[in-house]
Amino acid sequence: MAASKCTSLSGALTRQLLDSVDSVLFDCDGVIWRGDQAIPRAPEVINSLKKNGKRVFFVTNNSTKTRQMYADKLGKLGFDATADEVFGTAYCSAMYLKNVCKLDGKVYLIGSNAMKQELEEVGIQPVGVGPDPISGVQIDWANVPLDKEVRAVLVGFDEHFSYMKLNRALQYLCNPDCQFVGTNTDTRLPLEGGKAVPGTGCLLRAVETAAQRQAQVVGKPSSFMFECVASQFDLDPQKCLMVGDRLDTDIMLGSNCGMKTLLTLTGVSTVAEAEANLKSECPHRQRMVPDYYVDSIADILPALQA
Amino acid sequence: MAASKCTSLSGALTRQLLDSVDSVLFDCDGVIWRGDQAIPRAPEVINSLKKNGKRVFFVTNNSTKTRQMYADKLGKLGFDATADEVFGTAYCSAMYLKNVCKLDGKVYLIGSNAMKQELEEVGIQPVGVGPDPISGVQIDWANVPLDKEVRAVLVGFDEHFSYMKLNRALQYLCNPDCQFVGTNTDTRLPLEGGKAVPGTGCLLRAVETAAQRQAQVVGKPSSFMFECVASQFDLDPQKCLMVGDRLDTDIMLGSNCGMKTLLTLTGVSTVAEAEANLKSECPHRQRMVPDYYVDSIADILPALQA
Repeated sequence: MAASKCTSLSGALTRQLLDSVDSVLFDCDGVIWRGDQAIPRAPEVINSLKKNGKRVFFVTNNSTKTRQMYADKLGKLGFDATADEVFGTAYCSAMYLKNVCKLDGKVYLIGSNAMKQELEEVGIQPVGVGPDPISGVQIDWANVPLDKEVRAVLVGFDEHFSYMKLNRALQYLCNPDCQFVGTNTDTRLPLEGGKAVPGTGCLLRAVETAAQRQAQVVGKPSSFMFECVASQFDLDPQKCLMVGDRLDTDIMLGSNCGMKTLLTLTGVSTVAEAEANLKSECPHRQRMVPDYYVDSIADILPALQA
Repeated sequence: MAASKCTSLSGALTRQLLDSVDSVLFDCDGVIWRGDQAIPRAPEVINSLKKNGKRVFFVTNNSTKTRQMYADKLGKLGFDATADEVFGTAYCSAMYLKNVCKLDGKVYLIGSNAMKQELEEVGIQPVGVGPDPISGVQIDWANVPLDKEVRAVLVGFDEHFSYMKLNRALQYLCNPDCQFVGTNTDTRLPLEGGKAVPGTGCLLRAVETAAQRQAQVVGKPSSFMFECVASQFDLDPQKCLMVGDRLDTDIMLGSNCGMKTLLTLTGVSTVAEAEANLKSECPHRQRMVPDYYVDSIADILPALQA
């Protein structure tokens, strides 16, 4: 049905699209909420989708919250949601280390308490969470005591990121058997009013530069995020719709995995950017063109309530 | 005289090379010393060069010391050297901000006390040196108080590098009029026994990723380092010999500026790497082939004492 791409979604087309899928995957920030405020009518959209028999999932690159913390926030904002519908990179990184890396040992974690919890939940012991101030001189840093049971370095969002953490990661990663995983490569966390703070991508790039190695990245657009959902809920990508506000993560994930894709304009990317990708002859950029776009996910509500 | 490149330097050739230059520029770590120990006989080499009427300069990407601190270290190890022969990136970055950027205002400095001193020496006021711990939440970070007189961000080696410093640099660099300078891009600081700690390149990469801008880099192989020496001492590059242990910084600087180049094998790079560059058909790699190489700079001593 997606004869042409980057189509404005409205009227009968919306109904047709929804009829063609059984599962809808939503990015969170910029899609169903902004900061601590729900996008107007977004809770009705999610709840109506469920009433219409669709399965709904929340797929986010944010690594600072556990599944349960997300479920609590969703509930508070009026979304009908449970923790097992939430796939954040804190949880997915734990699954990745356990099921893909088959990690047998501890992980040196540059990340949050939420990541620590999700790792412990799957039986992996993280070390390194919290501040790690510097002392001594270079030769002391190079000989910093290491935990001999650490078999992987995991980098997520960490407000306590410091030179000593960067150094500790380097010392672990000098061992070629030590695995190297990053939650995501987002360079900035956008906030209200056009402001932004540095994202995990900056921290990961620093560690990659020191280690002279590339991390395996778990978050969107890596297909692992979808595989994580798909394997647990037996999803057929052709019957899935990926809804997001970013072309380089959400829409790219959808394209990479064979899902239908819907760009919503309440967040980062614009239609002009999508159309520029469409007109380019670059295969990479073609994967950053959504099938459809809407001003807000509230626009699909009439089709759900008809 | 350099008919073929990457030639082992010995015998009459050494004399011929030295006769063809009036100035010799030395990298420091891995060339004239390693850590706190002089390379055997290196002080005799430097002192004999001077006795033979050559001008000698010390050109280093290390940003953690002032010119005076370098002169003191050189003196202690037996080198006949003065502060005005030392060109480190702490000093050269101050010169760059003053003379190239024509900076009119303060600089937000991710760097050391030595960098602070060199900036103050040329009349530039740095802010930000020392620890900068995190507090609050994302929205507080985005609204962190900024110094309205800051007109540039300078990134050098900073053991107090932290998420908050990264964030503060981002907030300054969101202003497109704020200039962005890095001391150097070395990814690691090599230490004895094959150990290493993260170099300034890691910190700079993190800030570049957050700011979505590329820094102007002062250090080798940027030709500014040579121009800084050349303008003060009226050097003719064709009568200069650049001596270093790294192909990607020292030898590349020599090639970029039209100097003769000598690789010494007491540090990072190997002859095999140089020969691989020579055999490659890549113009970029060709600039990382030295004219000559020696096992140690001590090897040129006989030619100086003959």
